[in-house]
Amino acid sequence: MAPGLRADAIVTDVGSVKGKVIELVAPHLDMRRFVPGHPVAGTEKSGPAAAIDRLFENRWCILAPQAVTDADATEQVAALWRALGSKVELMEPAHHDKVLAITSHLPHLLAYNIVNTADDLEGVLKGEVLKYAAGGFTDFTRIAASDPTMWRDVFLHNKTAVLEIVGRYIEDLTALQRAIRWDEAEVLFERFKSAQAIRREVVRAGQAYKRVPSGRYQRDGSARQLSQTLS
Amino acid sequence: MAPGLRADAIVTDVGSVKGKVIELVAPHLDMRRFVPGHPVAGTEKSGPAAAIDRLFENRWCILAPQAVTDADATEQVAALWRALGSKVELMEPAHHDKVLAITSHLPHLLAYNIVNTADDLEGVLKGEVLKYAAGGFTDFTRIAASDPTMWRDVFLHNKTAVLEIVGRYIEDLTALQRAIRWDEAEVLFERFKSAQAIRREVVRAGQAYKRVPSGRYQRDGSARQLSQTLS
Repeated sequence: MAPGLRADAIVTDVGSVKGKVIELVAPHLDMRRFVPGHPVAGTEKSGPAAAIDRLFENRWCILAPQAVTDADATEQVAALWRALGSKVELMEPAHHDKVLAITSHLPHLLAYNIVNTADDLEGVLKGEVLKYAAGGFTDFTRIAASDPTMWRDVFLHNKTAVLEIVGRYIEDLTALQRAIRWDEAEVLFERFKSAQAIRREVVRAGQAYKRVPSGRYQRDGSARQLSQTLS
Repeated sequence: MAPGLRADAIVTDVGSVKGKVIELVAPHLDMRRFVPGHPVAGTEKSGPAAAIDRLFENRWCILAPQAVTDADATEQVAALWRALGSKVELMEPAHHDKVLAITSHLPHLLAYNIVNTADDLEGVLKGEVLKYAAGGFTDFTRIAASDPTMWRDVFLHNKTAVLEIVGRYIEDLTALQRAIRWDEAEVLFERFKSAQAIRREVVRAGQAYKRVPSGRYQRDGSARQLSQTLS
Protein backbone atom coordinates (compact mmCIF):
# COMPACT_ATOMS: atom_id res chain seq x y z
CA MET A 1 0.00 0.00 0.00
CA ALA A 2 3.04 2.27 0.37
CA PRO A 3 2.80 3.98 -3.05
CA GLY A 4 -0.80 5.02 -2.38
CA LEU A 5 -0.17 6.69 0.98
CA ARG A 6 -0.18 10.43 1.60
CA ALA A 7 3.32 11.63 2.49
CA ASP A 8 2.40 12.40 6.10
CA ALA A 9 0.16 9.35 6.62
CA ILE A 10 0.74 7.55 9.90
CA VAL A 11 0.95 3.77 9.64
CA THR A 12 0.65 1.36 12.55
CA ASP A 13 0.14 -2.39 12.98
CA VAL A 14 -1.23 -4.81 15.57
CA GLY A 15 1.17 -7.75 15.19
CA SER A 16 2.38 -9.96 18.06
CA VAL A 17 6.05 -9.50 17.12
CA LYS A 18 7.62 -6.08 16.64
CA GLY A 19 11.28 -6.47 15.60
CA LYS A 20 10.51 -8.50 12.49
CA VAL A 21 7.63 -6.23 11.46
CA ILE A 22 9.93 -3.21 11.60
CA GLU A 23 12.55 -5.05 9.57
CA LEU A 24 10.02 -6.02 6.90
CA VAL A 25 8.30 -2.64 6.73
CA ALA A 26 11.47 -0.48 6.75
CA PRO A 27 12.30 -0.72 3.00
CA HIS A 28 8.79 0.37 2.04
CA LEU A 29 7.64 3.12 4.40
CA ASP A 30 8.84 6.43 5.79
CA MET A 31 9.80 5.08 9.20
CA ARG A 32 9.23 8.47 10.85
CA ARG A 33 5.51 7.84 10.32
CA PHE A 34 5.43 4.13 11.24
CA VAL A 35 4.36 3.37 14.84
CA PRO A 36 4.64 -0.36 15.62
CA GLY A 37 1.82 -1.44 17.94
CA HIS A 38 0.51 -4.47 19.79
CA PRO A 39 -2.80 -4.49 21.68
CA VAL A 40 -2.44 -7.31 24.23
CA ALA A 41 -6.04 -8.50 24.10
CA GLY A 42 -8.11 -11.14 22.39
CA THR A 43 -9.00 -14.77 22.84
CA GLU A 44 -8.14 -18.05 21.17
CA LYS A 45 -11.01 -17.46 18.75
CA SER A 46 -10.67 -15.66 15.44
CA GLY A 47 -12.94 -14.21 12.78
CA PRO A 48 -15.85 -11.74 12.94
CA ALA A 49 -18.10 -14.20 14.81
CA ALA A 50 -15.65 -14.15 17.73
CA ALA A 51 -15.79 -10.36 18.13
CA ILE A 52 -16.03 -9.01 21.68
CA ASP A 53 -17.23 -5.47 22.21
CA ARG A 54 -15.10 -3.52 24.67
CA LEU A 55 -12.26 -5.99 23.99
CA PHE A 56 -9.63 -3.30 24.46
CA GLU A 57 -11.09 -1.67 27.54
CA ASN A 58 -8.60 -1.59 30.40
CA ARG A 59 -6.19 -3.77 28.46
CA TRP A 60 -2.64 -2.83 27.62
CA CYS A 61 -1.62 -1.68 24.19
CA ILE A 62 2.13 -1.64 23.65
CA LEU A 63 3.58 0.85 21.18
CA ALA A 64 7.18 0.29 20.11
CA PRO A 65 8.38 3.48 18.38
CA GLN A 66 12.00 3.71 17.26
CA ALA A 67 14.41 6.63 17.63
CA VAL A 68 13.40 7.84 14.15
CA THR A 69 9.66 7.75 14.84
CA ASP A 70 8.01 11.19 14.97
CA ALA A 71 6.73 11.95 18.47
CA ASP A 72 3.44 13.31 17.09
CA ALA A 73 2.81 10.08 15.16
CA THR A 74 3.31 8.01 18.30
CA GLU A 75 1.03 10.36 20.23
CA GLN A 76 -1.76 10.09 17.66
CA VAL A 77 -1.67 6.30 17.63
CA ALA A 78 -1.62 6.32 21.46
CA ALA A 79 -4.69 8.59 21.43
CA LEU A 80 -6.49 6.11 19.15
CA TRP A 81 -5.91 3.25 21.60
CA ARG A 82 -6.83 5.36 24.60
CA ALA A 83 -10.08 6.27 22.87
CA LEU A 84 -10.83 2.54 22.69
CA GLY A 85 -10.25 2.29 26.44
CA SER A 86 -6.74 0.82 26.36
CA LYS A 87 -3.84 1.71 28.60
CA VAL A 88 -0.84 2.56 26.43
CA GLU A 89 2.75 1.59 27.23
CA LEU A 90 5.86 2.46 25.21
CA MET A 91 8.53 -0.22 24.89
CA GLU A 92 11.69 -0.90 22.87
CA PRO A 93 10.80 -3.33 20.04
CA ALA A 94 13.40 -5.91 21.16
CA HIS A 95 12.19 -5.70 24.76
CA HIS A 96 8.58 -6.13 23.64
CA ASP A 97 9.55 -9.31 21.82
CA LYS A 98 11.25 -10.66 24.95
CA VAL A 99 8.35 -9.84 27.30
CA LEU A 100 5.80 -11.36 24.94
CA ALA A 101 7.94 -14.46 24.42
CA ILE A 102 7.43 -15.35 28.08
CA THR A 103 3.91 -14.02 28.69
CA SER A 104 2.30 -15.19 25.47
CA HIS A 105 4.44 -17.10 22.95
CA LEU A 106 5.85 -19.72 25.34
CA PRO A 107 2.42 -20.47 26.88
CA HIS A 108 1.01 -21.08 23.41
CA LEU A 109 3.87 -23.40 22.46
CA LEU A 110 3.44 -25.39 25.69
CA ALA A 111 -0.30 -25.65 25.17
CA TYR A 112 0.03 -26.89 21.59
CA ASN A 113 2.65 -29.34 22.76
CA ILE A 114 0.74 -30.93 25.64
CA VAL A 115 -2.25 -31.56 23.42
CA ASN A 116 -0.06 -33.36 20.90
CA THR A 117 1.88 -35.31 23.54
CA ALA A 118 -1.43 -36.54 24.94
CA ASP A 119 -2.64 -37.50 21.49
CA ASP A 120 0.47 -39.59 20.76
CA LEU A 121 0.29 -41.53 24.02
CA GLU A 122 0.09 -45.30 23.69
CA GLY A 123 -2.06 -47.18 26.15
CA VAL A 124 -4.16 -44.16 27.04
CA LEU A 125 -7.18 -43.61 24.83
CA LYS A 126 -7.97 -40.17 23.49
CA GLY A 127 -11.46 -40.54 24.92
CA GLU A 128 -9.98 -40.95 28.38
CA VAL A 129 -7.90 -37.81 28.05
CA LEU A 130 -11.00 -35.88 27.02
CA LYS A 131 -13.08 -37.42 29.80
CA TYR A 132 -10.71 -36.44 32.58
CA ALA A 133 -9.48 -33.18 31.07
CA ALA A 134 -11.02 -31.21 33.94
CA GLY A 135 -8.10 -32.29 36.13
CA GLY A 136 -5.93 -29.53 34.67
CA PHE A 137 -5.58 -30.39 30.98
CA THR A 138 -8.51 -28.16 29.95
CA ASP A 139 -6.72 -24.98 31.03
CA PHE A 140 -3.97 -25.70 28.54
CA THR A 141 -6.20 -26.58 25.65
CA ARG A 142 -7.97 -23.22 25.47
CA ILE A 143 -5.05 -21.43 23.83
CA ALA A 144 -4.18 -24.56 21.83
CA ALA A 145 -7.33 -23.69 19.86
CA SER A 146 -5.61 -20.55 18.54
CA ASP A 147 -5.07 -20.02 14.82
CA PRO A 148 -2.22 -22.31 13.60
CA THR A 149 -1.19 -20.03 10.72
CA MET A 150 -0.80 -16.97 12.91
CA TRP A 151 1.11 -18.85 15.57
CA ARG A 152 3.45 -20.56 13.14
CA ASP A 153 4.42 -17.07 11.98
CA VAL A 154 4.74 -15.67 15.52
CA PHE A 155 7.28 -18.38 16.42
CA LEU A 156 9.27 -18.03 13.21
CA HIS A 157 9.30 -14.22 13.46
CA ASN A 158 10.26 -14.06 17.12
CA LYS A 159 12.78 -16.85 16.83
CA THR A 160 15.60 -15.47 18.96
CA ALA A 161 13.50 -14.56 22.00
CA VAL A 162 11.38 -17.72 21.78
CA LEU A 163 14.36 -20.08 21.50
CA GLU A 164 15.99 -18.40 24.49
CA ILE A 165 12.90 -18.81 26.66
CA VAL A 166 12.10 -22.35 25.47
CA GLY A 167 15.68 -23.32 26.29
CA ARG A 168 15.31 -22.00 29.83
CA TYR A 169 11.92 -23.65 30.22
CA ILE A 170 13.24 -27.08 29.22
CA GLU A 171 16.21 -26.62 31.55
CA ASP A 172 13.91 -25.84 34.47
CA LEU A 173 11.53 -28.67 33.62
CA THR A 174 14.42 -31.11 33.42
CA ALA A 175 15.48 -30.02 36.92
CA LEU A 176 11.97 -30.80 38.22
CA GLN A 177 12.05 -34.14 36.42
CA ARG A 178 15.33 -34.94 38.16
CA ALA A 179 13.93 -33.86 41.54
CA ILE A 180 11.00 -36.25 41.08
CA ARG A 181 13.32 -39.10 40.08
CA TRP A 182 15.56 -38.60 43.12
CA ASP A 183 12.76 -37.90 45.61
CA GLU A 184 13.94 -34.37 46.30
CA ALA A 185 10.78 -33.41 48.16
CA GLU A 186 12.16 -30.08 49.39
CA VAL A 187 13.18 -28.94 45.89
CA LEU A 188 9.68 -29.66 44.59
CA PHE A 189 7.98 -28.01 47.55
CA GLU A 190 10.05 -24.82 47.28
CA ARG A 191 9.48 -24.47 43.54
CA PHE A 192 5.73 -25.07 43.88
CA LYS A 193 5.45 -22.71 46.84
CA SER A 194 7.16 -19.89 44.96
CA ALA A 195 4.93 -20.45 41.92
CA GLN A 196 1.87 -20.23 44.16
CA ALA A 197 3.06 -16.90 45.57
CA ILE A 198 3.62 -15.48 42.09
CA ARG A 199 0.14 -16.59 41.03
CA ARG A 200 -1.28 -14.52 43.89
CA GLU A 201 0.47 -11.50 42.46
CA VAL A 202 -0.98 -12.18 39.01
CA VAL A 203 -4.46 -12.31 40.50
CA ARG A 204 -3.80 -9.15 42.49
CA ALA A 205 -2.57 -7.44 39.34
CA GLY A 206 -6.11 -8.00 38.08
CA GLN A 207 -5.08 -9.95 35.02
CA ALA A 208 -7.15 -13.04 35.82
CA TYR A 209 -10.14 -12.82 33.57
CA LYS A 210 -13.12 -15.09 33.51
CA ARG A 211 -15.72 -15.68 30.85
CA VAL A 212 -19.27 -14.76 31.77
CA PRO A 213 -22.41 -16.22 30.21
CA SER A 214 -22.77 -13.41 27.67
CA GLY A 215 -19.48 -14.47 26.13
CA ARG A 216 -17.79 -11.31 27.34
CA TYR A 217 -14.88 -11.23 29.73
CA GLN A 218 -14.80 -9.53 33.08
CA ARG A 219 -12.32 -9.18 35.87
CA ASP A 220 -12.28 -12.08 38.27
CA GLY A 221 -13.21 -10.41 41.53
CA SER A 222 -13.73 -13.68 43.35
CA ALA A 223 -10.19 -14.80 42.58
CA ARG A 224 -8.87 -11.51 43.91
CA GLN A 225 -10.84 -12.01 47.07
CA LEU A 226 -9.45 -15.52 47.49
CA SER A 227 -5.94 -14.29 47.06
CA GLN A 228 -6.49 -11.81 49.89
CA THR A 229 -7.92 -14.52 52.10
CA LEU A 230 -4.88 -16.69 51.51
CA SER A 231 -2.25 -14.02 52.04
CA MET B 1 -7.73 -46.16 62.25
CA ALA B 2 -7.54 -49.82 61.20
CA PRO B 3 -7.80 -51.34 64.73
CA GLY B 4 -11.01 -49.38 65.40
CA LEU B 5 -12.89 -50.51 62.31
CA ARG B 6 -15.77 -52.99 62.26
CA ALA B 7 -14.71 -56.19 60.45
CA ASP B 8 -16.99 -55.54 57.49
CA ALA B 9 -16.39 -51.77 57.31
CA ILE B 10 -15.81 -50.47 53.79
CA VAL B 11 -12.91 -48.04 53.45
CA THR B 12 -12.32 -45.74 50.48
CA ASP B 13 -10.12 -42.74 49.71
CA VAL B 14 -10.09 -39.72 47.40
CA GLY B 15 -6.39 -39.44 46.56
CA SER B 16 -5.00 -38.36 43.18
CA VAL B 17 -2.74 -41.41 42.92
CA LYS B 18 -4.03 -44.96 43.32
CA GLY B 19 -1.12 -47.43 43.04
CA LYS B 20 0.85 -45.94 45.91
CA VAL B 21 -2.23 -45.60 48.15
CA ILE B 22 -2.99 -49.30 47.68
CA GLU B 23 0.63 -50.18 48.46
CA LEU B 24 0.61 -48.10 51.67
CA VAL B 25 -2.81 -49.24 52.85
CA ALA B 26 -2.38 -52.96 52.10
CA PRO B 27 -0.47 -53.93 55.30
CA HIS B 28 -3.14 -52.35 57.49
CA LEU B 29 -6.57 -53.09 56.04
CA ASP B 30 -8.63 -56.02 54.82
CA MET B 31 -8.17 -55.30 51.14
CA ARG B 32 -11.47 -57.00 50.26
CA ARG B 33 -13.18 -53.99 51.86
CA PHE B 34 -10.90 -51.26 50.51
CA VAL B 35 -12.19 -49.44 47.41
CA PRO B 36 -9.61 -46.94 46.06
CA GLY B 37 -11.37 -43.86 44.67
CA HIS B 38 -10.64 -40.57 42.95
CA PRO B 39 -13.30 -37.95 42.28
CA VAL B 40 -11.92 -35.88 39.37
CA ALA B 41 -13.28 -32.55 40.51
CA GLY B 42 -12.12 -29.51 42.41
CA THR B 43 -10.25 -26.30 41.77
CA GLU B 44 -6.84 -24.88 42.56
CA LYS B 45 -8.26 -23.61 45.85
CA SER B 46 -8.24 -25.56 49.08
CA GLY B 47 -9.82 -25.36 52.52
CA PRO B 48 -13.44 -24.99 53.68
CA ALA B 49 -13.71 -21.42 52.34
CA ALA B 50 -13.17 -22.78 48.81
CA ALA B 51 -16.06 -25.24 49.04
CA ILE B 52 -18.34 -25.48 45.99
CA ASP B 53 -21.78 -27.01 46.41
CA ARG B 54 -22.65 -29.49 43.68
CA LEU B 55 -18.91 -29.89 43.03
CA PHE B 56 -19.33 -33.53 42.10
CA GLU B 57 -22.41 -33.19 39.94
CA ASN B 58 -21.87 -34.58 36.46
CA ARG B 59 -18.16 -35.06 37.16
CA TRP B 60 -16.33 -38.33 36.90
CA CYS B 61 -15.40 -40.36 39.92
CA ILE B 62 -12.91 -43.13 39.19
CA LEU B 63 -12.97 -46.23 41.38
CA ALA B 64 -9.97 -48.55 41.12
CA PRO B 65 -10.92 -51.84 42.79
CA GLN B 66 -8.44 -54.73 42.67
CA ALA B 67 -9.14 -58.39 41.93
CA VAL B 68 -9.50 -59.02 45.70
CA THR B 69 -12.00 -56.21 46.26
CA ASP B 70 -15.50 -57.40 47.19
CA ALA B 71 -17.97 -56.52 44.44
CA ASP B 72 -20.54 -55.33 47.01
CA ALA B 73 -18.01 -52.93 48.56
CA THR B 74 -17.27 -51.39 45.16
CA GLU B 75 -20.98 -51.13 44.44
CA GLN B 76 -21.70 -49.35 47.73
CA VAL B 77 -18.95 -46.80 47.18
CA ALA B 78 -20.17 -46.29 43.60
CA ALA B 79 -23.68 -45.68 44.96
CA LEU B 80 -22.32 -43.03 47.33
CA TRP B 81 -20.73 -41.12 44.46
CA ARG B 82 -23.78 -41.49 42.26
CA ALA B 83 -25.89 -40.07 45.08
CA LEU B 84 -23.65 -36.99 44.95
CA GLY B 85 -24.35 -36.68 41.24
CA SER B 86 -21.09 -38.16 39.95
CA LYS B 87 -20.63 -40.49 37.01
CA VAL B 88 -18.65 -43.53 38.18
CA GLU B 89 -15.99 -45.28 36.11
CA LEU B 90 -14.00 -48.37 37.10
CA MET B 91 -10.32 -48.46 36.15
CA GLU B 92 -7.20 -50.52 36.91
CA PRO B 93 -5.12 -48.61 39.49
CA ALA B 94 -2.02 -48.51 37.23
CA HIS B 95 -4.10 -47.30 34.30
CA HIS B 96 -5.68 -44.60 36.48
CA ASP B 97 -2.23 -43.34 37.39
CA LYS B 98 -1.22 -43.17 33.74
CA VAL B 99 -4.39 -41.34 32.61
CA LEU B 100 -4.12 -38.83 35.44
CA ALA B 101 -0.40 -38.28 34.77
CA ILE B 102 -1.29 -36.77 31.39
CA THR B 103 -4.63 -35.13 32.17
CA SER B 104 -3.74 -33.63 35.54
CA HIS B 105 -0.24 -34.19 36.90
CA LEU B 106 1.73 -33.04 33.85
CA PRO B 107 -0.39 -29.87 33.41
CA HIS B 108 0.30 -28.95 37.04
CA LEU B 109 4.04 -29.51 36.65
CA LEU B 110 4.13 -27.36 33.50
CA ALA B 111 2.16 -24.61 35.17
CA TYR B 112 4.41 -24.50 38.23
CA ASN B 113 7.42 -24.51 35.94
CA ILE B 114 6.40 -21.64 33.65
CA VAL B 115 5.71 -19.40 36.60
CA ASN B 116 9.18 -20.08 37.97
CA THR B 117 10.92 -19.74 34.60
CA ALA B 118 9.27 -16.34 34.20
CA ASP B 119 10.33 -15.31 37.68
CA ASP B 120 13.99 -16.17 37.03
CA LEU B 121 14.20 -14.25 33.77
CA GLU B 122 16.85 -11.58 33.58
CA GLY B 123 16.05 -8.39 31.71
CA VAL B 124 12.31 -8.86 32.01
CA LEU B 125 10.76 -7.39 35.13
CA LYS B 126 8.26 -9.40 37.16
CA GLY B 127 5.88 -6.46 36.90
CA GLU B 128 5.96 -6.73 33.13
CA VAL B 129 5.13 -10.44 33.22
CA LEU B 130 2.15 -9.70 35.46
CA LYS B 131 1.06 -6.76 33.33
CA TYR B 132 0.92 -8.74 30.10
CA ALA B 133 -0.13 -12.07 31.58
CA ALA B 134 -3.42 -11.93 29.68
CA GLY B 135 -1.55 -12.93 26.52
CA GLY B 136 -1.69 -16.60 27.59
CA PHE B 137 0.35 -16.78 30.79
CA THR B 138 -2.73 -16.37 33.02
CA ASP B 139 -4.23 -19.69 31.89
CA PHE B 140 -1.20 -21.49 33.22
CA THR B 141 -1.03 -19.70 36.53
CA ARG B 142 -4.46 -20.80 37.74
CA ILE B 143 -3.38 -24.33 38.58
CA ALA B 144 0.05 -23.07 39.71
CA ALA B 145 -1.91 -21.73 42.70
CA SER B 146 -2.62 -25.29 43.83
CA ASP B 147 -1.44 -26.59 47.21
CA PRO B 148 2.34 -27.20 47.07
CA THR B 149 2.32 -29.92 49.75
CA MET B 150 -0.31 -31.99 48.03
CA TRP B 151 1.33 -31.66 44.64
CA ARG B 152 4.81 -32.50 45.92
CA ASP B 153 3.29 -35.76 47.16
CA VAL B 154 1.37 -36.45 43.96
CA PHE B 155 4.58 -36.26 41.90
CA LEU B 156 6.61 -38.37 44.30
CA HIS B 157 3.85 -40.98 44.61
CA ASN B 158 3.14 -41.24 40.89
CA LYS B 159 6.79 -41.15 39.93
CA THR B 160 6.86 -43.82 37.20
CA ALA B 161 3.91 -42.50 35.20
CA VAL B 162 4.91 -38.85 35.66
CA LEU B 163 8.54 -39.39 34.60
CA GLU B 164 7.39 -41.27 31.51
CA ILE B 165 5.05 -38.48 30.45
CA VAL B 166 7.45 -35.64 31.31
CA GLY B 167 10.10 -37.40 29.22
CA ARG B 168 7.78 -37.55 26.23
CA TYR B 169 6.71 -33.95 26.73
CA ILE B 170 10.30 -32.66 26.75
CA GLU B 171 11.07 -34.75 23.67
CA ASP B 172 8.12 -33.25 21.80
CA LEU B 173 8.92 -29.72 22.97
CA THR B 174 12.53 -30.13 21.86
CA ALA B 175 11.28 -31.14 18.40
CA LEU B 176 9.22 -27.92 18.23
CA GLN B 177 12.24 -25.93 19.41
CA ARG B 178 14.28 -27.47 16.59
CA ALA B 179 11.54 -26.73 14.04
CA ILE B 180 11.56 -23.07 15.08
CA ARG B 181 15.35 -22.90 14.85
CA TRP B 182 15.42 -24.40 11.36
CA ASP B 183 12.34 -22.53 10.04
CA GLU B 184 10.36 -25.72 9.51
CA ALA B 185 7.09 -23.87 8.97
CA GLU B 186 5.19 -26.96 7.83
CA VAL B 187 6.15 -28.97 10.92
CA LEU B 188 4.90 -26.18 13.19
CA PHE B 189 1.71 -25.69 11.22
CA GLU B 190 0.84 -29.40 11.22
CA ARG B 191 1.44 -29.76 14.97
CA PHE B 192 -0.59 -26.64 15.79
CA LYS B 193 -3.39 -27.64 13.45
CA SER B 194 -3.71 -31.06 15.06
CA ALA B 195 -3.72 -29.53 18.55
CA GLN B 196 -6.51 -27.18 17.49
CA ALA B 197 -8.58 -30.12 16.26
CA ILE B 198 -8.12 -31.99 19.54
CA ARG B 199 -9.14 -28.92 21.50
CA ARG B 200 -12.42 -28.91 19.61
CA GLU B 201 -13.03 -32.45 20.78
CA VAL B 202 -12.32 -31.45 24.38
CA VAL B 203 -14.88 -28.69 24.12
CA ARG B 204 -17.36 -31.04 22.49
CA ALA B 205 -16.78 -33.55 25.27
CA GLY B 206 -18.20 -30.85 27.54
CA GLN B 207 -15.18 -30.66 29.79
CA ALA B 208 -14.56 -26.95 29.29
CA TYR B 209 -15.88 -25.32 32.43
CA LYS B 210 -16.15 -21.65 33.17
CA ARG B 211 -16.46 -19.83 36.42
CA VAL B 212 -19.64 -17.84 36.92
CA PRO B 213 -20.05 -14.85 39.26
CA SER B 214 -21.45 -16.95 42.10
CA GLY B 215 -18.16 -18.81 42.29
CA ARG B 216 -19.74 -22.00 41.00
CA TYR B 217 -18.77 -23.72 37.80
CA GLN B 218 -21.02 -24.42 34.90
CA ARG B 219 -20.60 -26.03 31.51
CA ASP B 220 -19.32 -23.69 28.85
CA GLY B 221 -22.12 -23.79 26.33
CA SER B 222 -20.76 -20.85 24.36
CA ALA B 223 -17.49 -22.70 23.75
CA ARG B 224 -19.43 -25.69 22.49
CA GLN B 225 -21.33 -23.44 20.14
CA LEU B 226 -18.13 -21.91 18.84
CA SER B 227 -16.64 -25.32 18.23
CA GLN B 228 -19.63 -26.20 16.10
CA THR B 229 -19.36 -22.95 14.15
CA LEU B 230 -15.70 -23.66 13.41
CA SER B 231 -16.06 -27.27 12.41
